[in-house]
Amino acid sequence: MNGFVSWLPVVDAPVGTRLAVKDVIDVAGMPTGAGNPRWLATHSIPQQDAAVVRALRAEFTVVGKTHTDELAYSLSGTNAHYGTPVNPVAPERMPGGSSSGTAAVIAAGLADLGLGTDTAGSIRVPASYTGIYGLRPTHSRAPHDGMVPLAPSFDVPALLARDLATLRAGARLMLDGTGADARPRTVWWPADIPVAEPVRQVLRSTLTRLVGAGFELTTAPLFEAGGWDRVRAAFSTAQAAQVWEQHGEWVRRERPIFGRNVSARLTLAAEVTPRMAAEAHSVLRSASDRILRTLSDNHVLALPATPYPAPLLEDSGAGRAAVVRLTCLAPILGAPALSLPVATIEGLPLGLSLIGAPGSDESLLTTAELLR
Amino acid sequence: MNGFVSWLPVVDAPVGTRLAVKDVIDVAGMPTGAGNPRWLATHSIPQQDAAVVRALRAEFTVVGKTHTDELAYSLSGTNAHYGTPVNPVAPERMPGGSSSGTAAVIAAGLADLGLGTDTAGSIRVPASYTGIYGLRPTHSRAPHDGMVPLAPSFDVPALLARDLATLRAGARLMLDGTGADARPRTVWWPADIPVAEPVRQVLRSTLTRLVGAGFELTTAPLFEAGGWDRVRAAFSTAQAAQVWEQHGEWVRRERPIFGRNVSARLTLAAEVTPRMAAEAHSVLRSASDRILRTLSDNHVLALPATPYPAPLLEDSGAGRAAVVRLTCLAPILGAPALSLPVATIEGLPLGLSLIGAPGSDESLLTTAELLR
Repeated sequence: MNGFVSWLPVVDAPVGTRLAVKDVIDVAGMPTGAGNPRWLATHSIPQQDAAVVRALRAEFTVVGKTHTDELAYSLSGTNAHYGTPVNPVAPERMPGGSSSGTAAVIAAGLADLGLGTDTAGSIRVPASYTGIYGLRPTHSRAPHDGMVPLAPSFDVPALLARDLATLRAGARLMLDGTGADARPRTVWWPADIPVAEPVRQVLRSTLTRLVGAGFELTTAPLFEAGGWDRVRAAFSTAQAAQVWEQHGEWVRRERPIFGRNVSARLTLAAEVTPRMAAEAHSVLRSASDRILRTLSDNHVLALPATPYPAPLLEDSGAGRAAVVRLTCLAPILGAPALSLPVATIEGLPLGLSLIGAPGSDESLLTTAELLR
Repeated sequence: MNGFVSWLPVVDAPVGTRLAVKDVIDVAGMPTGAGNPRWLATHSIPQQDAAVVRALRAEFTVVGKTHTDELAYSLSGTNAHYGTPVNPVAPERMPGGSSSGTAAVIAAGLADLGLGTDTAGSIRVPASYTGIYGLRPTHSRAPHDGMVPLAPSFDVPALLARDLATLRAGARLMLDGTGADARPRTVWWPADIPVAEPVRQVLRSTLTRLVGAGFELTTAPLFEAGGWDRVRAAFSTAQAAQVWEQHGEWVRRERPIFGRNVSARLTLAAEVTPRMAAEAHSVLRSASDRILRTLSDNHVLALPATPYPAPLLEDSGAGRAAVVRLTCLAPILGAPALSLPVATIEGLPLGLSLIGAPGSDESLLTTAELLR
């Protein structure tokens, strides 16, 4: 170690039990910085663990807190104040965010279970970019207290790991007992997934393993023409409204400095009217109702976790809409989503995402085992 | 960077202006951890810079906070919670403390000016062990607010640098205008310095440069028989009494976990009675009066900054008394002391310490220039 402090005690925990906690989640006695120095300066050091940290301590030991995009309101993994954690599998590329540091330490083997959050993809995007597993649980099944909120309707504590067994151990400790005993029999790979052909092909080919295990495959389109973008836009509006509701007062009072992209999003968030938010929620509700009906019929929805592998660092900020188009479905549905590192494109990892009916987190993990 | 947070914003400051601040001194908006996780957990994040940080910002930029021994109550540079900063010139050896991280980042070139504290040697010991300059100023000339106290009668903010020019720039910003226009003409190298012969010889030989520049050399003994140890013991008692006065209540209430050596010292500190403290102060007062009279007669006292170069890491805790015997004089006198990296023993740096009359900080720096 060099001489600069990190305020992270050196903890001697056996490999397999090391827990890294994203710095938007409270760990008793350590700061919660939320990726922004003004947040750090204006919030007291929590005296209690977040409920989810408390739960995970039954089998895991906190070895450190991990970098996050500012207020978790970004999917790139870059941070204007603290720098960008290195993506261990592609150092010249983004780690993905906002659970950037969490993914980086898991992918690098510096911790075993990563506890982050996922609002619009903040676990699944870095999982895809760094080649690890990421579980966004059912929205209602994990305790939310002790987390810096972003958009509470969509926020969930979420997990990262290099293997499914560790992810399952974390999920068992973190989730309540309302898991549904789902037995998905159909994998739904929509014909209209808006990604480039090579991405579609490499991920589609991984599904043959599910078909080989007895799953039926359906390719019914997910949306009518324009649906992906309409739903994505509605999600971003609904999210932005909640972000401003959570943080607008603090932003106005403290005038924090934000990086360019986060700053631009917050500026837009401040302009969302209640009417815009209501219209957005209405769009989301109809899409959600329809898709949930299909999922509850023993379907598991398969999508690219991200539309492409980790972008180069200099591309920062580009293509958020293309990512959110894919990642917004799980938060809209309140459904569990799992990103699996089952494919590569030109040597770069690319995740497959499985989305199940709400409550089916455990069966999603079981389905994932067929894809290893 | 890996994914673990340090809560230290990445700051782009030109080489020469980078300021590292020991983590017992407040920097607005960052935690002050004092080397102990319980301290971090039970103190709020300061909203204001310490006065001395504010002063140094005129020409320097804070690039990070730096590791410290717990509550600064140790001279080894080890820390049971956060680990030991690597001594860049001797990685298998202690960096010295308690301004351990500050010395480590200065010696490694990661910052240019180090702001630490010195109560019983906490700047001069790491300066000696890592081969850099360390200035403990006149006790009354630097503002003390915004620092975690250890023993206020002896505490001073203090500086580290790789060169005298940077040290002088820092001193100019940090010290009040009461500098005495001292013109020391005599260097006092006491015949009774309690160190091994090779250390005595290598440091004594550096003084020929002062003699060559016109200084007289006197070797009058500093103490009567047993005096070094009597004064050292009195200092440690007086210090311990103040440490417990400052921190006893917090220690009793919070029951923090401390490393073995710090814990042992605090246990002893709790047992110092007012009578013991009064007797100690009386010993210190007579020694101090006598030595100050000589210093004010244009003398500069030269001593080894430490009795030996950096000990091996596995020696942790050994020999504190031998170190404090030398380093306690400046705090007892309230006098400025400068550690100069002018010698090596078997390839390891060893500092020469110059102690001047109180107020003579600037002339001490001028004298030091003759020794470069």
